[in-house]
Amino acid sequence: MKNRIITISREFGSGGRTIGKKVAEKLNIPCYDSELIEKIALESGFSEEYVKEIEENSRGRFLSLFSNRAYAPNNEDIIWKIQCKVILDFAEKGPCVIVGRCADYVLREKADCLKVFIHADKKFRAERIVNGYGETDVSVEQRIKEKEKRRAAYHRFYTDKKWGDARNYDVALDSGVIGLDKCVEIIKSLF
Amino acid sequence: MKNRIITISREFGSGGRTIGKKVAEKLNIPCYDSELIEKIALESGFSEEYVKEIEENSRGRFLSLFSNRAYAPNNEDIIWKIQCKVILDFAEKGPCVIVGRCADYVLREKADCLKVFIHADKKFRAERIVNGYGETDVSVEQRIKEKEKRRAAYHRFYTDKKWGDARNYDVALDSGVIGLDKCVEIIKSLF
Repeated sequence: MKNRIITISREFGSGGRTIGKKVAEKLNIPCYDSELIEKIALESGFSEEYVKEIEENSRGRFLSLFSNRAYAPNNEDIIWKIQCKVILDFAEKGPCVIVGRCADYVLREKADCLKVFIHADKKFRAERIVNGYGETDVSVEQRIKEKEKRRAAYHRFYTDKKWGDARNYDVALDSGVIGLDKCVEIIKSLF
Repeated sequence: MKNRIITISREFGSGGRTIGKKVAEKLNIPCYDSELIEKIALESGFSEEYVKEIEENSRGRFLSLFSNRAYAPNNEDIIWKIQCKVILDFAEKGPCVIVGRCADYVLREKADCLKVFIHADKKFRAERIVNGYGETDVSVEQRIKEKEKRRAAYHRFYTDKKWGDARNYDVALDSGVIGLDKCVEIIKSLF
């Protein structure tokens, strides 16, 4: 039987990770987020930091034309392959919440998945980012812009789907308008 | 004080109109759908049928370059202007549900709006369309494709936003996966 999984894709700073953790807590099932990175790092031999950054530093389809991809898989591709295996392994174990890493796409035929997308306007996300991660030399607006661009490119490259299109998800919620707790309640009620 | 309005944008056949009506019923507030068409027709002098078809027959930005739009507003533009006025009038009256006609965009600064998008996969929609509207000489897949294309073009032209992007809405739900009744329950709980 297929396991019931909740996958959460999220805009940087939208609180998707927090929502995922809370949903898992309430449903008493595991939430895989940093565990995913740890396992991929372990199995690939790359550092956790490097694996973490890959999703946000993809160069996308256009630039990759100029890479060595035509001759051999590059690090991104190697990590992607291991990532798919790790996500499938976690999904095999039993019901769970998986945050990020295109899990919705990886599990599209393998699990009974509720595909969630969490987003919010830039102002709401900027405040959360500064509160959660602190300020850096780069403005928070610039950080959001860069991360989003890379995340969208990464998503597009490996899944061939448009990042953020409502039709790729079963539920898409604006956490800024609806509030994190209400998002948790809605997702929980759909499990 | 701003009135609380629920706007529902929907893919053809997704059940968005039915959901809107049920939400309004449960909240005991009016749902404007055909009333919108009637009022626009009345105020513009065009027939209801013509007003109804305009949203699905927009030629979009590209083709309109070759229209007479540069010299004078065409029928689409005249109807759009009246449509904005009618939507604002309805929103002034009190809390309500408004289905379609880019109401979310028209009310973006004028009302306390919950912006909903309802979508579903083609199989689910095809079944609902054949059950609800019957078969025609044109295949249901072709009807969906045509309507979607026109609706997206219309939306894009007047709002300059991408049709179906989750980030344009507070809540986006797949009515095929979640079920119409559960969609109603979620939207109602957010009012």
